Amino acid sequence: MCSELSDMDKLILASGSPRRKEILEKFSILFTVKPSSYIEVFTDESPEKQVLNLARNKVLSLLESDTVFDGSIILGADTCIDLDGKIIGKPRGPEEAEKMLNSFSGRTHKVITALALYNGKNGTFCLKKRITAVTFADLSTREIEWYLNTEEWDGAAGGYRIQEKGSLLITGINGSWYNVMGLPIRLFYGMVASQGLTLFRT
Amino acid sequence: MCSELSDMDKLILASGSPRRKEILEKFSILFTVKPSSYIEVFTDESPEKQVLNLARNKVLSLLESDTVFDGSIILGADTCIDLDGKIIGKPRGPEEAEKMLNSFSGRTHKVITALALYNGKNGTFCLKKRITAVTFADLSTREIEWYLNTEEWDGAAGGYRIQEKGSLLITGINGSWYNVMGLPIRLFYGMVASQGLTLFRT
Repeated sequence: MCSELSDMDKLILASGSPRRKEILEKFSILFTVKPSSYIEVFTDESPEKQVLNLARNKVLSLLESDTVFDGSIILGADTCIDLDGKIIGKPRGPEEAEKMLNSFSGRTHKVITALALYNGKNGTFCLKKRITAVTFADLSTREIEWYLNTEEWDGAAGGYRIQEKGSLLITGINGSWYNVMGLPIRLFYGMVASQGLTLFRT
Repeated sequence: MCSELSDMDKLILASGSPRRKEILEKFSILFTVKPSSYIEVFTDESPEKQVLNLARNKVLSLLESDTVFDGSIILGADTCIDLDGKIIGKPRGPEEAEKMLNSFSGRTHKVITALALYNGKNGTFCLKKRITAVTFADLSTREIEWYLNTEEWDGAAGGYRIQEKGSLLITGINGSWYNVMGLPIRLFYGMVASQGLTLFRT
């Protein structure tokens, strides 16, 4: 919560997600985007462990690339959907999206976002996660058909976008809305504040 | 979920709230706005009862005004904040907003939205409500000061806007995000569908 920041003090977002960019902009945070080239590979580990590793590895990959200042502040983030302990990724086509939506229908799944904040000024690494429960309505075949026609499934984990028409399928959430969008802003603020950093402009 | 609607089939929104308008637009619902002239008066009744009455009265007031078709479909809505059984309205100045934010700090309050759907085609009235629990972080004096400076408190029930920077003060919600914004879209969809109406375009 300050008025001016130098270029070197700007946050580096190690993610190409347009949603995360949108969220940081909404809160008047100065940042530059440098998507990490880290390739996501899912393993047999628990979804929570994997998402934390991925967020951290995105930052490490950027640090190794020599494209950032020594004293940079870098944010890595990863979001996944956990249904019955299994990670649900992005559907490869409408048929797979339909299957995913059917598996969510009338049930609650978890959305996990991990944030990795690297403070190059003191070399510390802060790693945290938030879990939000998302409850879907009992969806009719017609509703799923309608939603698939919106084409929002394309590129979306779980085949839906809560911030778009996907919220019509959802009866409620328990946790942070921005967590489901990919960047739990209050958690991020707490991590930033605990480092004594001032990224938020008034 | 249809492709074309005649003017007479369009929904009438009996509310001047820009947020409700925005939500209906987001879901490609055809509607016209006719704010009700009903004057809100708070009573000693429970917040839930009052919010249901207000939503219904907004529709009734419009029906009595003779500015709508006989067969119109009208949506009335009202949202209130319930803290310990008392309605928290809009602050009249920054000092009152500060008091409200302090009273929410580190606690959970309820946001109640009531929807009244009048179907002029068969004369039925459907009245429903949703409750969303909103949990605030432990706010520091500096955080409250920062938020007051955003001026989002002005005109906002409880002195905050969850859809704007206000979400930085919130650790999580339990229920519908759109309910807090003033129009729980899944509830509305269910009410519309149970009437056999098709207001949603693909």
